[in-house]
Amino acid sequence: MHSYRKVIPLRVKKRMAFINITPQVQEALRESRIREGLCLVNAMHITASVFINDDEPGLHEHYARWLEQLAPYDPSPQRYHHNRTGEDNADAHHKRQVMGREVVGLTAPDPAPKGSRGHRGDSQCRDPTAAVALCPKLCPRRSTQCHLSAPAAA
Amino acid sequence: MHSYRKVIPLRVKKRMAFINITPQVQEALRESRIREGLCLVNAMHITASVFINDDEPGLHEHYARWLEQLAPYDPSPQRYHHNRTGEDNADAHHKRQVMGREVVGLTAPDPAPKGSRGHRGDSQCRDPTAAVALCPKLCPRRSTQCHLSAPAAA
Amino acid sequence: MHSYRKVIPLRVKKRMAFINITPQVQEALRESRIREGLCLVNAMHITASVFINDDEPGLHEHYARWLEQLAPYDPSPQRYHHNRTGEDNADAHHKRQVMGREVVGLTAPDPAPKGSRGHRGDSQCRDPTAAVALCPKLCPRRSTQCHLSAPAAA
Repeated sequence: MHSYRKVIPLRVKKRMAFINITPQVQEALRESRIREGLCLVNAMHITASVFINDDEPGLHEHYARWLEQLAPYDPSPQRYHHNRTGEDNADAHHKRQVMGREVVGLTAPDPAPKGSRGHRGDSQCRDPTAAVALCPKLCPRRSTQCHLSAPAAA
Repeated sequence: MHSYRKVIPLRVKKRMAFINITPQVQEALRESRIREGLCLVNAMHITASVFINDDEPGLHEHYARWLEQLAPYDPSPQRYHHNRTGEDNADAHHKRQVMGREVVGLTAPDPAPKGSRGHRGDSQCRDPTAAVALCPKLCPRRSTQCHLSAPAAA
Repeated sequence: MHSYRKVIPLRVKKRMAFINITPQVQEALRESRIREGLCLVNAMHITASVFINDDEPGLHEHYARWLEQLAPYDPSPQRYHHNRTGEDNADAHHKRQVMGREVVGLTAPDPAPKGSRGHRGDSQCRDPTAAVALCPKLCPRRSTQCHLSAPAAA
């Protein structure tokens, strides 16, 4: 068995941002020389998410508003007891649960098996690519990492 | 390493529907002749979900009502800027995030390892089977596909 | 290919509880002698979740409150038609969708590849370990199980 592993470092200046890491994942897969197998793309922070969806600004604008409704940012320890620990990111731990954690995709030489039909956005699914949602930063000056792991038959 | 891949085409007439694809997944696993490995069942549209839960009408009725509360259908571009693109399915992009994207299961010859106990619904977990939730259709006259991938030891 | 499978039985007395199963997962991985591969940790009940996040009491307190807001416990069949079946756990089927179902992680001999930086909570991601959220019990006197599967190169 052949496997490949890569860290994709990301640095975010805002409390929340959506970053399309599809090119980085595709590059890593090319480097891996793995033709068929499973690919795991995992956000290595527990207030970040990796997910597959449309890289469209209007969608991301509402994702941010929607997540803020579901779990509003509130640094005080009154709403979120987690913030008694000295952190202010309890909301992000909730947002991450809604958006998901990791992506498992297929590393396939042929992205379109017989019988499949195209659609905008499909390429994001067919290849194990992903947009990453970075909810509130864990700590200032800290980068968020994405780990790509592809244990597979070479 | 042996692997198998299959497209399960689904055609949905309503904006939202819950379809049990357990029989199709089980049939594909039989065809694959894979005895042990991981199975990935992935909705190939970014407004659809594959998840594992009870195939019970009362539950699905409330899932639909609940998802409508969390992210109401609204074709206007006022609520969802995503709909400025000419699409009307921004709500479905949100619903899909709540319900999840793909299922990773185990393709095991023995579905009940020592120590496990039965429960209604367990069979849906033990085998890599799934119910698929189809949130608002992406485009009229377009079918939704499920991809099944099982890289595994034969 | 080498693989390993283990049942982690859990018994919960309350309707909702958060149990850190990281030690059990780590022990199972040691038993497996698998050095590199993918690890699947799956809650074998459809009202339970396995997820990765901080094992911090203040966070869990608010997770419970938040899930109760999103899908309140209500045994009556008026709100949740699912409870017409004689069960009272429809809320838990919804909570499980928010918290997720299974964790796919990496079983790596080196938990910190070059370029990665430490953070509190990272160890929960880097190793395929997990905290399990047990939403309302399915039935009295029934234990919840976690299945660990690690098909991998030995």
